[in-house]
Amino acid sequence: MGISAEKNMPAKAKLKYIKSLQLKKYRTQEQCFVVEGAKSVAELLNSDFEITLVAATEEFAKQFEQQLLSRKVEVIPAHERELSSVGSLQTNSAAIAVAKMKHFPPPVVSPRDLVLALDNIRDPGNVGTILRTADWFGVTTVVASEETADFYNAKTIGATMGSFCRVRVHYVSLPDFLANVPVIFGTFLEGEDIHGISGVAGGVIVIGNEANGISAEVARRVTHRVTIPKYGNAESLNAAMATAIVLDNLRRSQK
Amino acid sequence: MGISAEKNMPAKAKLKYIKSLQLKKYRTQEQCFVVEGAKSVAELLNSDFEITLVAATEEFAKQFEQQLLSRKVEVIPAHERELSSVGSLQTNSAAIAVAKMKHFPPPVVSPRDLVLALDNIRDPGNVGTILRTADWFGVTTVVASEETADFYNAKTIGATMGSFCRVRVHYVSLPDFLANVPVIFGTFLEGEDIHGISGVAGGVIVIGNEANGISAEVARRVTHRVTIPKYGNAESLNAAMATAIVLDNLRRSQK
Repeated sequence: MGISAEKNMPAKAKLKYIKSLQLKKYRTQEQCFVVEGAKSVAELLNSDFEITLVAATEEFAKQFEQQLLSRKVEVIPAHERELSSVGSLQTNSAAIAVAKMKHFPPPVVSPRDLVLALDNIRDPGNVGTILRTADWFGVTTVVASEETADFYNAKTIGATMGSFCRVRVHYVSLPDFLANVPVIFGTFLEGEDIHGISGVAGGVIVIGNEANGISAEVARRVTHRVTIPKYGNAESLNAAMATAIVLDNLRRSQK
Repeated sequence: MGISAEKNMPAKAKLKYIKSLQLKKYRTQEQCFVVEGAKSVAELLNSDFEITLVAATEEFAKQFEQQLLSRKVEVIPAHERELSSVGSLQTNSAAIAVAKMKHFPPPVVSPRDLVLALDNIRDPGNVGTILRTADWFGVTTVVASEETADFYNAKTIGATMGSFCRVRVHYVSLPDFLANVPVIFGTFLEGEDIHGISGVAGGVIVIGNEANGISAEVARRVTHRVTIPKYGNAESLNAAMATAIVLDNLRRSQK
């Protein structure tokens, strides 16, 4: 049995409840997740996520008093030490918030949309950085294989630097999702030079696993095999780097 | 006083010595650093770094027997558990190696070279990912401000995925180093669209700090202010993402 947040719980128990949400099991049970640090909590306060609880230093609570009041959020005072001990950040001199997960209907992809598909990206930090990059390039729909790191993991949310408020991640069976998509890009060592691509309307861009690349079942669905030209000797690029370069080239091709 | 490696030390003491090299103080004193995991140690064995010690599982030692023999490296047998307890990786079923630091003469930049300048990149993982990206794009000379994370930090070395063998990092006073460089690129929110750049011969590309961007003193030296076009709502791109996109665009402009 997990720890649930009740209005009349003492502050210490509430901090313990926040800590329990580091585990996916309790996040799923509570349908809640945690947002940490000044920038991310500030973005959350400006979003339409339902916020259930905020633990904040006096300074943060004062600075964001108006927003906390207008959102009718319960705020419990906390020391920096407490914030870092119940959260995942080494230092946190601002706040931790608890918000309700959202559930979205299955994504509908129009032929003019760019959509990312994460094929088994295991590292939460990588997923977060990829979502931040997607947000920069105006990609707000992301699908992910079930083995991809959890969107609501505190490290994922943290690495998005606030982009978790704008990008939707749908966990799906990728081969099934891709079965009816007409344009699917994937990076391979032997594809078309991405610098030569022009006039891309839209499509789904598959990003492969950090160690193994795109899985065989997903690779079969890829309609456009592209390559990022290599000028040196590194064996491969990190998944998030590849995402950044592909999105930059596809957006450039649309100009 | 630190722990030095002596030939007749027992294996346990040597593992303790390896662990001590997690601290910069002991790395500097010993002029040695640590390389962990199968892929990185394999790259090290193929490099011209002087290797002083390898702790390896039986399986790794057998697989790389020829190379370990030809390099005349002392190999101490170790269990996975020991490798992860003295190293920085959560799991390591292969090996940890100790190698001698290299010292390079000050970099000489020819007008046709692309060179990276890291302006206070604090996270060792970011530095490592940037060096891996540099290696992909054939950039092998990197200068870094003194406040930039240590090249020889185990997390930096690990994130390079072997590129530490090919990319040289020189710690310098960046404003002094840049004083005589004719072409210096830097990313700013209000620069020239990087998609429009053509015919770049060479130059130094400044990568700014994760939170604060390029420092004022360095910004004054920048001769070419460029911007990565934004299509969405993220406030900024991660430093390593920006590096990847700028290098891809500059290499493309040279075609």
